[in-house]
Amino acid sequence: MSADLKPVPASAITSWDDEADVVVVGYGIAGAAAAVEASAAGADVLVVERTGGWGGAAAMAGGFIYLGGGTDLQKACGFDDSVENMAAFLKVAMGPGADAERIDDYCAGSVAHYDWLVSCGVPFKPVFWGEPGWEPPSDEGLMFTGGENAFPYNTIAAPAPRGHVPQMTDKVAGERSGGYMLMKPLVETATAQGVRSVYDTEVQSLITAADGRVVGIVARRYSDTVAIKARRGVVLASGSFAYSDAMVAQYAPRIAGRPAASIEQHDGRAIRMAQTLGADLAHMDATEVAFFCDPQQLVRGILVNGFGQRYIAEDTYAGRIGQQTLYYQDNTAYLIIDGDAMEEAIAATSATPFLRRPATWVCETVAELEAEIGLPAGVLQHTVAYYNEHAANGADPLLHKKPQWLRPIGSPVGAIDLRNSTGGFTLGGLLTTLDGRVVHVSGEPIPGLFAAGRSAAGLSAWGYASGVSLGDGSFYGRRAGRSAAQS
Amino acid sequence: MSADLKPVPASAITSWDDEADVVVVGYGIAGAAAAVEASAAGADVLVVERTGGWGGAAAMAGGFIYLGGGTDLQKACGFDDSVENMAAFLKVAMGPGADAERIDDYCAGSVAHYDWLVSCGVPFKPVFWGEPGWEPPSDEGLMFTGGENAFPYNTIAAPAPRGHVPQMTDKVAGERSGGYMLMKPLVETATAQGVRSVYDTEVQSLITAADGRVVGIVARRYSDTVAIKARRGVVLASGSFAYSDAMVAQYAPRIAGRPAASIEQHDGRAIRMAQTLGADLAHMDATEVAFFCDPQQLVRGILVNGFGQRYIAEDTYAGRIGQQTLYYQDNTAYLIIDGDAMEEAIAATSATPFLRRPATWVCETVAELEAEIGLPAGVLQHTVAYYNEHAANGADPLLHKKPQWLRPIGSPVGAIDLRNSTGGFTLGGLLTTLDGRVVHVSGEPIPGLFAAGRSAAGLSAWGYASGVSLGDGSFYGRRAGRSAAQS
Repeated sequence: MSADLKPVPASAITSWDDEADVVVVGYGIAGAAAAVEASAAGADVLVVERTGGWGGAAAMAGGFIYLGGGTDLQKACGFDDSVENMAAFLKVAMGPGADAERIDDYCAGSVAHYDWLVSCGVPFKPVFWGEPGWEPPSDEGLMFTGGENAFPYNTIAAPAPRGHVPQMTDKVAGERSGGYMLMKPLVETATAQGVRSVYDTEVQSLITAADGRVVGIVARRYSDTVAIKARRGVVLASGSFAYSDAMVAQYAPRIAGRPAASIEQHDGRAIRMAQTLGADLAHMDATEVAFFCDPQQLVRGILVNGFGQRYIAEDTYAGRIGQQTLYYQDNTAYLIIDGDAMEEAIAATSATPFLRRPATWVCETVAELEAEIGLPAGVLQHTVAYYNEHAANGADPLLHKKPQWLRPIGSPVGAIDLRNSTGGFTLGGLLTTLDGRVVHVSGEPIPGLFAAGRSAAGLSAWGYASGVSLGDGSFYGRRAGRSAAQS
Repeated sequence: MSADLKPVPASAITSWDDEADVVVVGYGIAGAAAAVEASAAGADVLVVERTGGWGGAAAMAGGFIYLGGGTDLQKACGFDDSVENMAAFLKVAMGPGADAERIDDYCAGSVAHYDWLVSCGVPFKPVFWGEPGWEPPSDEGLMFTGGENAFPYNTIAAPAPRGHVPQMTDKVAGERSGGYMLMKPLVETATAQGVRSVYDTEVQSLITAADGRVVGIVARRYSDTVAIKARRGVVLASGSFAYSDAMVAQYAPRIAGRPAASIEQHDGRAIRMAQTLGADLAHMDATEVAFFCDPQQLVRGILVNGFGQRYIAEDTYAGRIGQQTLYYQDNTAYLIIDGDAMEEAIAATSATPFLRRPATWVCETVAELEAEIGLPAGVLQHTVAYYNEHAANGADPLLHKKPQWLRPIGSPVGAIDLRNSTGGFTLGGLLTTLDGRVVHVSGEPIPGLFAAGRSAAGLSAWGYASGVSLGDGSFYGRRAGRSAAQS
């Protein structure tokens, strides 16, 4: 970080290169939602984007938006849900210390938010995809994305799928996905409403009035430095700090060196700029953690740690497996899977065949396998024997994997080496009010400054479910845009 | 937090109530070390303390100072150590992402720091205490306090005890301890050097010059508000944020509701005040975690999680057991211990008999015990059988507990319920340079502002060893004091 991060006094600006009522920094999901809502509230809006076009990380994402409480899509797919049910799940799944007030707020507004997305033209195909996986293989619209139907969550709240995916008929991984079909209609809506945008323009610092109010931004455009005035407010929506090595080292060192599902523009600068004004932070240690294995394999094997012990139900949300493996198990895991299960996994429909892993070791017996892997003698043998004994009866008394996946492990038996098979992005950021205002460490909002998306702390304390980032990013992006327009 | 946290411009101060070259906020270990060193460097020093006297959390602590590399005390007790050996241990034990440069710096200066403490009159009795425990029972001066001699640390660096305890012949728990005998000589040294102090004076905010330099503090003394000028610098040394519910919720929510080994004055205000100037933070999620059980019991039993699986060598540093239990095992643990081991633990010398726990359940067989506790049927039976089989041969292939503690578990067999038996304090704080300057998010030091002790991030990323707080607090307290004096 360089000194040009520091706030610039408005008195030092001799001429403004552009101006708007609301200036939005970043044209990803939070920025798009903020722009649509701010312009709908009557504001003249300018979006300033660092890259050559709109999209951000959102347009390259699978596109899950975590919504529930009884959306039309849930109903069309035959699922019951309620605000209370959704909140009960999230209060546990988002981790100890999750912000209960924010979760209640988000759940209460979830159905209306879905309707708003539809009204903006975001398409959802009313088809549920019920197979294990990171995402649906085609354009199905609804899926379990948080382990709602896995133990222990299925004992806490009635399981309902809440991963809503915009319909994309012609998916190309990392290029055209559900996230693209979320962004495109929102940007078109914004444009139709008169939102302006400038690209290749990278924010450098905030401009403040003598009374501390944020009144604009300084940005760099190629070799030029430009000053952009914000008559009502600045919305920071330029993503996480996953690609800031320094911030990751300070705040979330255990994800260091393994960024994933993120883009390199996520350098944390928006967070830093706000910190120069005394902005507060929250949940900077929280991360999404992907686990690089196809869930179709995971459910058919048993996952053991470096001791040869099972530690998590293999049919839960794969991101939770990633978190627990990275943080609790020293990033060490082995999937024990027999030959038949391996064939079944290959035959099963999967959207992520590129995450399918070959067996690292294959043996006739578990005793041999245990020795090959180098596990303490006897532990894995017991683990498999115990699992098999109960699986034969359709039970998993240890971890409660669903009966449909329980089958004794036979021979030949293999193991997939899943050490260091995690990666992810940061979830923490600026502390904001529920209406998107950035909060100073004194507890008061910073006048003229708003934030949403992964520049801000959202629903997650430590836990996560796929769709929470696009979910709270769009939800609180709207709030931030509306608040800025009304400032 | 209230608005009076915000920085006050020097131009608004009509008269100064006091002034000094260096103003130190807080008279605990970091403040005392800073005061001694700043005055030794020729500065006129004023220490501003919120309570009625010096001491802080340090004076009530057991008093461990984590030092090594071949101190006179280590040598007198017959232990070899080296700077490299100490650093190799700390780089692993302080957790993934620990600041290697700081650890190297600390280790390189450790012997000289010990000599400095001795020169200030801090007494150390050259007697090693080798029994399991949180602290020595009497005035012994040296102990293992980080699991250096337990697996896997004993494979990473040659084990050397580094917990240095000042000699206190007449200990009273929580009142007169080794920590008192660390603080008393340092305060006497400071006073002899002319350091002044004011008590019952609670800092409210920083005072800044027009160019951003910190030039003083505003404090409250009973009903008065006073302005104190710092001609060269302000050293923030007023402890952690363990007692700020809001900060704990934002930064370290999993320790919420369980503060321990801390004092209620640790409200994070110094961190907040510096944040208003754009100060950066580090490792805010790191915590010390005590485990409320006497180590004399721990080593003689086997510790199992909520599944009935072992997960950590019972003879390692009890604080590591606390961390892993709270963070990795959902704060759920049971100590399985037989009648003979229970009697032995009671007979063993222990400094913490108040942490000795009665068996919650006692049964004739492990099968009965497993059912009583409510563990999944069969797992604990296997855990004990496996442990017993190898313990009979003096081996622990799973977790490598030292042979001296390995003995098959017999009958009657009990279990101590150790769920929710953790507590601790926060370790994160302001980002500082190695010479104690508070770093702005731009990467530059904030002129006139210094910090040390638990107001600052120290050696710990996530891991910990007893003595690290008084260790880095005194070490970098000195650095901060010297830097401030030379500013």
